[in-house]
Amino acid sequence: MTSSERPGPGSLEGIRVIDLTRVISGPFCTQMLGDHGAEVIKIESPASGDVLRSQGNVVNGFSWYFAQFNRNKRSLTLDLRSEEGKAILDRLLGEADVLVENFRPGVLAKMGLDDETLRGRYPRLVVGRINGFGSSGPYSDRPAYDFIAQAMSGFMGVNGPADAEPMRAAPPISDMVASQNLAFGLCAALVRRERSGCGDIVETSLTNGLIAMMGYLAAEFFATDRVPARTGNDHPMLYPYGLFKARDGKVAIAPSNDTMVERLLGALDRRDLLADERFADNASRMANRDALRACLTEVIETRRVDEWIEHLNRAGVPCGRVYSLRETFEDPQVQAQQMKIDLDQGDLGRVPVTGFPVKLREAPAGVHHPAPQLGEHSREILRELGVEEEEITAMHARGVI
Amino acid sequence: MTSSERPGPGSLEGIRVIDLTRVISGPFCTQMLGDHGAEVIKIESPASGDVLRSQGNVVNGFSWYFAQFNRNKRSLTLDLRSEEGKAILDRLLGEADVLVENFRPGVLAKMGLDDETLRGRYPRLVVGRINGFGSSGPYSDRPAYDFIAQAMSGFMGVNGPADAEPMRAAPPISDMVASQNLAFGLCAALVRRERSGCGDIVETSLTNGLIAMMGYLAAEFFATDRVPARTGNDHPMLYPYGLFKARDGKVAIAPSNDTMVERLLGALDRRDLLADERFADNASRMANRDALRACLTEVIETRRVDEWIEHLNRAGVPCGRVYSLRETFEDPQVQAQQMKIDLDQGDLGRVPVTGFPVKLREAPAGVHHPAPQLGEHSREILRELGVEEEEITAMHARGVI
Repeated sequence: MTSSERPGPGSLEGIRVIDLTRVISGPFCTQMLGDHGAEVIKIESPASGDVLRSQGNVVNGFSWYFAQFNRNKRSLTLDLRSEEGKAILDRLLGEADVLVENFRPGVLAKMGLDDETLRGRYPRLVVGRINGFGSSGPYSDRPAYDFIAQAMSGFMGVNGPADAEPMRAAPPISDMVASQNLAFGLCAALVRRERSGCGDIVETSLTNGLIAMMGYLAAEFFATDRVPARTGNDHPMLYPYGLFKARDGKVAIAPSNDTMVERLLGALDRRDLLADERFADNASRMANRDALRACLTEVIETRRVDEWIEHLNRAGVPCGRVYSLRETFEDPQVQAQQMKIDLDQGDLGRVPVTGFPVKLREAPAGVHHPAPQLGEHSREILRELGVEEEEITAMHARGVI
Repeated sequence: MTSSERPGPGSLEGIRVIDLTRVISGPFCTQMLGDHGAEVIKIESPASGDVLRSQGNVVNGFSWYFAQFNRNKRSLTLDLRSEEGKAILDRLLGEADVLVENFRPGVLAKMGLDDETLRGRYPRLVVGRINGFGSSGPYSDRPAYDFIAQAMSGFMGVNGPADAEPMRAAPPISDMVASQNLAFGLCAALVRRERSGCGDIVETSLTNGLIAMMGYLAAEFFATDRVPARTGNDHPMLYPYGLFKARDGKVAIAPSNDTMVERLLGALDRRDLLADERFADNASRMANRDALRACLTEVIETRRVDEWIEHLNRAGVPCGRVYSLRETFEDPQVQAQQMKIDLDQGDLGRVPVTGFPVKLREAPAGVHHPAPQLGEHSREILRELGVEEEEITAMHARGVI
């Protein structure tokens, strides 16, 4: 799939989003909206725009990092500290369905757009915001960053090997999760607005999003009052589960229940182990992990990873190879699912980015726009607002756009 | 906040969801819908219901693991292999807005509900599904499990210390991310349906969701053709960043740009380091990590973690403590954000669960129902469908419900 194939309208066709966000957490969210057909106007500072434009690998003056988070948006430069800039934003909001921001709490209010003003002036507008810790509470005005959210959510405390320090996840998962949460919350508010006519203010935070991801580990902590330990690749509640040594590498095997454990032992030709009282049920297997691991490894190390993956999958046992990102994007399933797509960036050529994880049959996601150059659509968007050509030129000369 | 305080209507008030999902990935999604006011009917097998009911810590016969993923749902037991069960499901779907399932691809079709039938028979229905790898492509019928999705998405390849093996994240992040993606996709489809009257089929998979989370690491790979390395708690592109040794423990510090680095060095009273050409910009600092780490640690180890957290936050530098889950839920900000709430489970007492990460001002999330006992609402739901009392009793006797 490339951006030169014109996609049909997405689910959010007709929804206009004013996007004041930068870096990752907001832009990933508004990109999700744009992927599904919303019209997203990304507002950037005239001087240098989103800081992501100068981060990561910049090829021919264009950051592929920026492209990864900003397809399906048009770019309007606007100096939001100027009165003229604020007046343009006001006109845009008057015609918009959604406003998204990821400033620190209070920054938007200082620009004159506190919650009361937003609700009063644009009653149909759905306002979305992402911040570090939520906009109330003792840390609401602390600066935030993914690493800190990972540390304070309890995620790092359970991530990593037992004998190493608490470990962050490499992708900025708190930013990504917050983006998904906000995209959901915005759409939920839009569903209500379609019925009631009323907008809303939707908020999520990096830290709250990750806390909600702690799921069953939180449940275990609440039930036992014992803090879950870091267990590396071992599952704290299930065995067998983990990476096993095959002849030429490791294979990930994860039977999730007794039936699948039976299938695994059958596929390994070691169904006899089920008669061993040390391995009769999950609790026994957890207590005798090392012994069972030895029995399983003895068999598994006799064959190659690819042989096991084929054999075990045929037997209905979840298993797979640990991929590098290169192997992920070379995998035939990942390719069949189009999880790498190319943006047609005109003179800059094709820029690959990750594909659409949410697939709709009747109104599928698509590439409606490649990632924009800074201010690429300023003139076009102002024209659509009814601003005269000379006025646009004058605003440009004054540095407002 | 407890479930005894009656919340107002949420954003999805009036949306009826038929929930055929079990374990984590589906139930977490339908719980998000229920949190925001949708009416969720969880359909479970009469024999034992969702397998989560017998997993994790079971207190007074009730699994707190199950409670974590199933508040805001009513439970209807139904034997979907029986013709009577199928007929009840058909009547429910005729009045429903959303159907969610997380069977392996093809299982729903075998029950007579293939995509054509669903679209033809219930044209306004939005169907949501989560599976392991997507419902097309060479691995579509493979069994799936979070661990395998983590392995094949490339996530494990970058997670963990440089000198250890590729590492899974402890929470089942592929299940959680898929749930969030599906909740978003379902609501996006509902927005369209409010306008067009047409339903849709929305799909996401454990693996595709995690691939989309690889974000800037994928961008770096695409731009350089080099596979990102595991870097543990170090950021592959920014320095300073990481865990630093204070007098009584470690502090996470993450200045995300030059301005914040200046603030950090100012707060450490080492602004002089900026004049050192080894540390003049991020590229130099990356090349001279060890030297800079030594300079910073020399200062940081002179004071306690809590002193630094207060001092650095006041200076506008993102920083925090690495929490255990206990510390997370004891933190005053997490409490102010109500990220732990109690379900009032009647005779079973109060069961704590994680709170709502998505906060709406006009139509907030709330606890409309605690987590249901197996089949707790079977009679009530069938009555609402207009099934006669004797018929319900007979169905129960026949094991259909």
